Amino acid sequence: MSKREITVVRTTNGKARPDPNHLGFGKYFTDHMFVMDYDRENGWHSPRVIPYQPITLDPATMVFHYGQTVFEGLKAYHSQDGRTLLFRPEKNVERLNRSCSRLNIPEVEEEAFLSGLKTLIQVDRDWIPTTEGTSLYIRPFILPTETNLRVAPASSYKFVIILSPVGSYYPEGINPVGINVEKQYTRAVLGGTGTAKTAGNYCAGYKAQQKASESGAAQVLWLDGIEKKYIEEVGSMNIFFKIDGEVVTPQLNGSILEGITRMSIIELLQEWGIPVTERKISFDEFVKAYQEERVEEVFGTGTAAVISPVGEFRYQDTKYLINNRQTGDLSKKLYETITGIQTGKIYDEFGWTVEVKSSGM
Amino acid sequence: MSKREITVVRTTNGKARPDPNHLGFGKYFTDHMFVMDYDRENGWHSPRVIPYQPITLDPATMVFHYGQTVFEGLKAYHSQDGRTLLFRPEKNVERLNRSCSRLNIPEVEEEAFLSGLKTLIQVDRDWIPTTEGTSLYIRPFILPTETNLRVAPASSYKFVIILSPVGSYYPEGINPVGINVEKQYTRAVLGGTGTAKTAGNYCAGYKAQQKASESGAAQVLWLDGIEKKYIEEVGSMNIFFKIDGEVVTPQLNGSILEGITRMSIIELLQEWGIPVTERKISFDEFVKAYQEERVEEVFGTGTAAVISPVGEFRYQDTKYLINNRQTGDLSKKLYETITGIQTGKIYDEFGWTVEVKSSGM
Ligand SMILES: Cc1ncc(COP(=O)(O)O)c(C=O)c1O
Ligand SMILES: Cc1ncc(COP(=O)(O)O)c(C=O)c1O
Repeated sequence: MSKREITVVRTTNGKARPDPNHLGFGKYFTDHMFVMDYDRENGWHSPRVIPYQPITLDPATMVFHYGQTVFEGLKAYHSQDGRTLLFRPEKNVERLNRSCSRLNIPEVEEEAFLSGLKTLIQVDRDWIPTTEGTSLYIRPFILPTETNLRVAPASSYKFVIILSPVGSYYPEGINPVGINVEKQYTRAVLGGTGTAKTAGNYCAGYKAQQKASESGAAQVLWLDGIEKKYIEEVGSMNIFFKIDGEVVTPQLNGSILEGITRMSIIELLQEWGIPVTERKISFDEFVKAYQEERVEEVFGTGTAAVISPVGEFRYQDTKYLINNRQTGDLSKKLYETITGIQTGKIYDEFGWTVEVKSSGM
Repeated sequence: MSKREITVVRTTNGKARPDPNHLGFGKYFTDHMFVMDYDRENGWHSPRVIPYQPITLDPATMVFHYGQTVFEGLKAYHSQDGRTLLFRPEKNVERLNRSCSRLNIPEVEEEAFLSGLKTLIQVDRDWIPTTEGTSLYIRPFILPTETNLRVAPASSYKFVIILSPVGSYYPEGINPVGINVEKQYTRAVLGGTGTAKTAGNYCAGYKAQQKASESGAAQVLWLDGIEKKYIEEVGSMNIFFKIDGEVVTPQLNGSILEGITRMSIIELLQEWGIPVTERKISFDEFVKAYQEERVEEVFGTGTAAVISPVGEFRYQDTKYLINNRQTGDLSKKLYETITGIQTGKIYDEFGWTVEVKSSGM
């Protein structure tokens, strides 16, 4: 057998399905996982679908010490006509490989990633929830498996994909949230790892998220790490402003994560003829436009929520109420179009969706 | 039995001791490890010394995804008169807890840390190498053990200590090294996690280290992440300059790691009456002093090497040769004094060393 051929070992001990109305996010996992290994001699090899199972690691394994990991996040959807759809998965492969490159991790071939993912989904297809708004969250990740405490890239890695049926992000309809403008903590800075989906970027934000929660806000507005002036992201989402009929989003500046939802929204707006610009935007510019009553909508974008309207910014003692805490028309239209394409309800003129056929590739 | 009492289970299957002349760093591990667990109900509990063994984790365990880990590094030394000495271990506990606080990890009591460490060393005492320059490297670390993909602090953790007999850093005598001045990549920035010993800070430096190695330099000189002007650290060490008879080291500015060797050197210099200042120092200031032939010595400081003299800085196409690539007198004297105190050869007037007695605490 070729070392590139995917082997499949099915569980003999399937788990009970969770209640589709109480899935939450990333709490339940399916019966199987995809794994492949890397070493210098063999490259990425031994791709396999195996029963979902623990990973056993020596305590000196590098993953516990120096954080050389990358991950991705995407979803599979059950369409009304019974198909299984992925949304632009090749963009996740590209981003994973950009993350790998920043972290000195060997890149993964698109074909190896996608065929592994599709085989895994075929095996666990009946785990995809079908209730409105639910989906199958896909978490590919890479960890270093070398046992050694030297501070240097590992010589061996594991690539793993796990699947989690997840609930609707908006069981009671889209709900604009309050956002705390963060001036003390920094998520990422030019020259750092902000453009990569790597573990250390996420725990670095917990302190600011705690401050936001304690002040009653749902998320953090991240400013640039250098001047603490320019808007970067909101929580783990990209951010868009509609000001005077024009849509603005922070340009990719070397510290912002390049969201696939962000990219898709820019393409949609262009298709619709709505002016959209990627440029620097400072919080001061927002405040000025706000005072002149030119701010129409603000929303975050990401795989989990798709669109998350911002109802309010809090900066020190000032509150900036946006669109009277209502979801704006553009936010609504974008949400419906993207989720419509993702779930096959709306014709996909962009060729964004990829079907996972019943068997074979 | 109280949940704070340390239980000891000894291995029945001890490993062969590695060759004391080829220990390297962090390659070999002793027969036992110390572990304790945290959950919200019980706090840190079930401290235990157990046979060195793998850790088994669900693939959705937070440690693989969001990097919420902290670690420490210190050493135990075998003194000529047969005692086992630790060097300022309470400073490592303090720093671990500062790291925990930045990463939203529950802090560890000094007593729990130190009694766990001492018990472990008592069990594995005959693993401490006795050859000149060797020691037992101690790696305490904390990882989140909750199984969940939400981006938030975990509710459960494991604290682990492993021990590695390590070789002399300078088997052929202290050797000044070349350092590449890094302008593109950033290790840490104010508001980020640079002051914490957390995994993500280390893998973030691999790319710059690779550039340094490719240019023939041994390490990276990190500049501040904001102006790329001020000197912060060298590799995973703090840095000192001797200019015009005065010693200068970058001040703790919110992105530099607070080294325990750094702290000890400042205290030693003060004791010796050598002027030492903690302040901002730019690479331009170094260049000016260099051109005026006022730079006498430059050295990095850290647990692994204690003192690592800088023989040369490389900045773009310019090389700055320091002290004719020789180890300076102050570097030598500091190295000999600190290693002398650590190994009990020199009387410890500061009360820095802590003896691990043969049994009991
Ligand atoms: C930091 C950060 N920003 C933005 C995003 C949004 O990216 P995407 O639209 O690809 O989900 C994510 C989530 O993936 C993220 O982790
Ligand atoms: C980033 C960094 N700076 C400096 C140091 C030096 O600290 P210490 O002297 O406590 O070993 C270390 C190593 O611990 C480190 O990881």
